[in-house]
Amino acid sequence: MTIFESIEKPTLLLDPDKVKQNIQRMCRKAKEQNIRFRPHFKTHQSAEIGEWFRQEGVTAITVSSLDMARYFAEHGWQDITLAFPVNIRQVLGIASLAQQIHLEILVESIETVHFLAGNLSETLDVWIKVDAGSHRTGLAWDAPQALSSLANAIQTSGHLKLRGVLTHAAHTYKASSPAEVRQVYSESIGRMHQARYSLADQGFNGLEVSVGDTPGCSLCDNLGEVDEIRPGNFVFFDAQQLALGSCRAEDIAVAVACPVVAKHPERQEAVLYGGAIHLSKEAMAEDGQMTYGKIALPEGLGWGKPLPGAYMARISQEHGVVHMAGKDLDRLHIGDLLCVLPVHSCLTVQVMGEYLTLAGEVISTMGC
Amino acid sequence: MTIFESIEKPTLLLDPDKVKQNIQRMCRKAKEQNIRFRPHFKTHQSAEIGEWFRQEGVTAITVSSLDMARYFAEHGWQDITLAFPVNIRQVLGIASLAQQIHLEILVESIETVHFLAGNLSETLDVWIKVDAGSHRTGLAWDAPQALSSLANAIQTSGHLKLRGVLTHAAHTYKASSPAEVRQVYSESIGRMHQARYSLADQGFNGLEVSVGDTPGCSLCDNLGEVDEIRPGNFVFFDAQQLALGSCRAEDIAVAVACPVVAKHPERQEAVLYGGAIHLSKEAMAEDGQMTYGKIALPEGLGWGKPLPGAYMARISQEHGVVHMAGKDLDRLHIGDLLCVLPVHSCLTVQVMGEYLTLAGEVISTMGC
Repeated sequence: MTIFESIEKPTLLLDPDKVKQNIQRMCRKAKEQNIRFRPHFKTHQSAEIGEWFRQEGVTAITVSSLDMARYFAEHGWQDITLAFPVNIRQVLGIASLAQQIHLEILVESIETVHFLAGNLSETLDVWIKVDAGSHRTGLAWDAPQALSSLANAIQTSGHLKLRGVLTHAAHTYKASSPAEVRQVYSESIGRMHQARYSLADQGFNGLEVSVGDTPGCSLCDNLGEVDEIRPGNFVFFDAQQLALGSCRAEDIAVAVACPVVAKHPERQEAVLYGGAIHLSKEAMAEDGQMTYGKIALPEGLGWGKPLPGAYMARISQEHGVVHMAGKDLDRLHIGDLLCVLPVHSCLTVQVMGEYLTLAGEVISTMGC
Repeated sequence: MTIFESIEKPTLLLDPDKVKQNIQRMCRKAKEQNIRFRPHFKTHQSAEIGEWFRQEGVTAITVSSLDMARYFAEHGWQDITLAFPVNIRQVLGIASLAQQIHLEILVESIETVHFLAGNLSETLDVWIKVDAGSHRTGLAWDAPQALSSLANAIQTSGHLKLRGVLTHAAHTYKASSPAEVRQVYSESIGRMHQARYSLADQGFNGLEVSVGDTPGCSLCDNLGEVDEIRPGNFVFFDAQQLALGSCRAEDIAVAVACPVVAKHPERQEAVLYGGAIHLSKEAMAEDGQMTYGKIALPEGLGWGKPLPGAYMARISQEHGVVHMAGKDLDRLHIGDLLCVLPVHSCLTVQVMGEYLTLAGEVISTMGC
C-alpha cells in the first residue's frame, strides 16, 4: 500500500531521501571550500527537518522572522542570523532572544542603528545589508560614503558589533540561463568584495562577507571568496529552480498531491482540488505560458518525472486547472491524484503547514 | 490609545462597522428582490463573523471545502452548499456530514454521479455545475445533450436529488468597467435560464438557478430572475473590487498593518515587513503597473483613503516593496506602520489566519 491510497485532499508530499541528498550536497560543497554553511530555514520551517541538517554538522542557521528565530531556538539552535532588516517594533523580543542564544541581525540605516543604540542593553552582532544588484533592500555596494557612515554609527552605538557585509543576490532568480546565474553570482561576489574594501579603507577591518541564493550556490562549483553562504530553497528545490537549471527534476523533494475533480477534454484540461491555498499563487513563465506548477503522476512510492506539456495553467482559491495532452487526459479518471511540483516551494510549505512523507509520517512546521 | 501602538508585526486589521454595513447592504438587496441569500463563507472563514450574518437573518451558506463545511456545521449552520465539484475521495466525510445537516453538493460529470450512486446510502441534494462563460469548471450552458444526460444520471442514481443549475460567473473579475461587469452578469443569467429551459424541455422541471459573484451582485441593481445568490468577497472587498468599481475605498473592511523597515528615496521606495506570507501573492495590473496592494496610512482608529500613486510594487516571502511619491516617503519613519489594502482579501485572510479588530479584539478563523 502506498500513501496515495489514503490521501483524501490536497497533501504536501515530502521525499526524505531527496531532501537528505540535497542537504548533503550543499554541506559538502561548503565544507570543501572551507565556507561556513548557515542554511536558511525559512524554506522548510520544520524542527524535524532541521535535525537532518544537524546530522550533517550544521550548527548555524538563518531565519527570516523573530517568530522563526524563537521557534528554532526552542528546538536547540544556538546560533541564528535573523536575515531581515531589523523591525524596530520587535526590539524587546529581539533583545530577549539575544540573551538566550547568539543572535545576529541586519541593519541598513542609521535611523535603525540609533534606535537600537537607545533601546538595547546588551551587545548584538550586526551585518550591514548590502544591495549587490537585486534592488530589494540594502545599501548600494558602490556607495562607500553611505557604507562607512553606517559602519561608523554601528561602531559608536555602544551596543552593536559589526560582523561584516551581507547580501542576497535574488536577481539570480531572474536569469535566463545557468551561465547567466553564474555570471550574476560571480558579479555579486565581486561587488561584496568592493563593499568590504571600501569599509577597510575607512579603517573597518576584519569584516566578513555573507552571501547565498539557491541558484548561485547550486550552479557555481566555486562559491568564491566568501565567509558564509545562506541558501535555503535548495533543500526542496521546485519548478522555478528546475527552469533555472539549479537542479534536476529528480532533486525536487516536495509535491502537492491533488485529486482530479473534473475533466474537460474539449480544451485539454483537468480540474484539480488544489488551488492558491495549497500551492500559493506564485507563477512563472515557461514556453510563453504562465504556470503555477508542473505536473507529475504518482509512481511507485513517490512521483515520476514531470509530464511533458502538462502544467497548472490557472489557479483560484481551491481550484487548479491543469493543461495536459489529450492522451494523458484520456488515461485520467475522476478521483485520481496528480502531483503538482510547486513553482516556489517556500511559499507552498508556508500555506500547507505540514508534510506527509512517502512513508506516511506527518512532519510539522512552525505554522501548525 | 489606538491598536497601532501595540502592533509589532504584520497584522490583519478588520473594521467591524464596515463588515456589518457590507453584510446589511447585500442582505437587503437579496431580500428586496425575494432571492435567497446564501453567502460564500470562504472569504472570512470565521464563526464569529458568521454570527454577524445570522443577525441579519441569514440561515443558508456556501463553503468551498468539506473541512469548511464541518467547521461551520460545528458552529450551528444547518444548511450548507459545498460549492466545489465533488471530490469523490471525500465521499465518506460528505455522507457523514449529510447525516447531521442539510448538505448540498455540485456535480458536473456522469463518472462522479455513478461513483456517488454506488457509495452513498442516503439521498443528497445536488446542483449541476454550469459553465456560463468563465471556463473554469462545469458543463457548458449551451450543451443541452450533456446537461440532460447528466440530469438523467442524477435522476436514476437513486441517491441524488436534482435541485437546479449553479454557476460562478468568475469572468466578471476580468471586466474592464462596471458596465462590462453588468453585461457579463446579465449575460450569464441569460445563459443559466437557457440551461434550465433545455432541461425543462427534457422533462426536468422545477429546477432552481443559483448564481453569484461579488462584482455582479454588487454592481447590478437588478439581480435578475434567479433563486439564489452566493457572493462572498463583498463582506470585505479589496483592491481588486475597488478597481472593478464593485465598492468604494471606504467599503474595504480589511487591511494588513505592516512595519516600515527601510526607505530608499533614490527609487521612491519603502520596504515593509509584510510579504507573500501575509498578503498572498495575488497581483493585479493597474495603470500599467503590477501591484500586490494599495497603501493607506493609519488614521484615527482605522486607516485612511488609499494614498494616490502608492502601491505594493514587489513582494517576496516576507518583504514588500512599496512605491510611493517622494513627499509621502519623506514623512515616513522606520518603524511606522502602513496599511496595505490587499488585492484579494480571501487569500489574505487564508494566509493570516486571524483578525485584529480596530477595537483590539482578536477574531479567529477555521485556520487557527
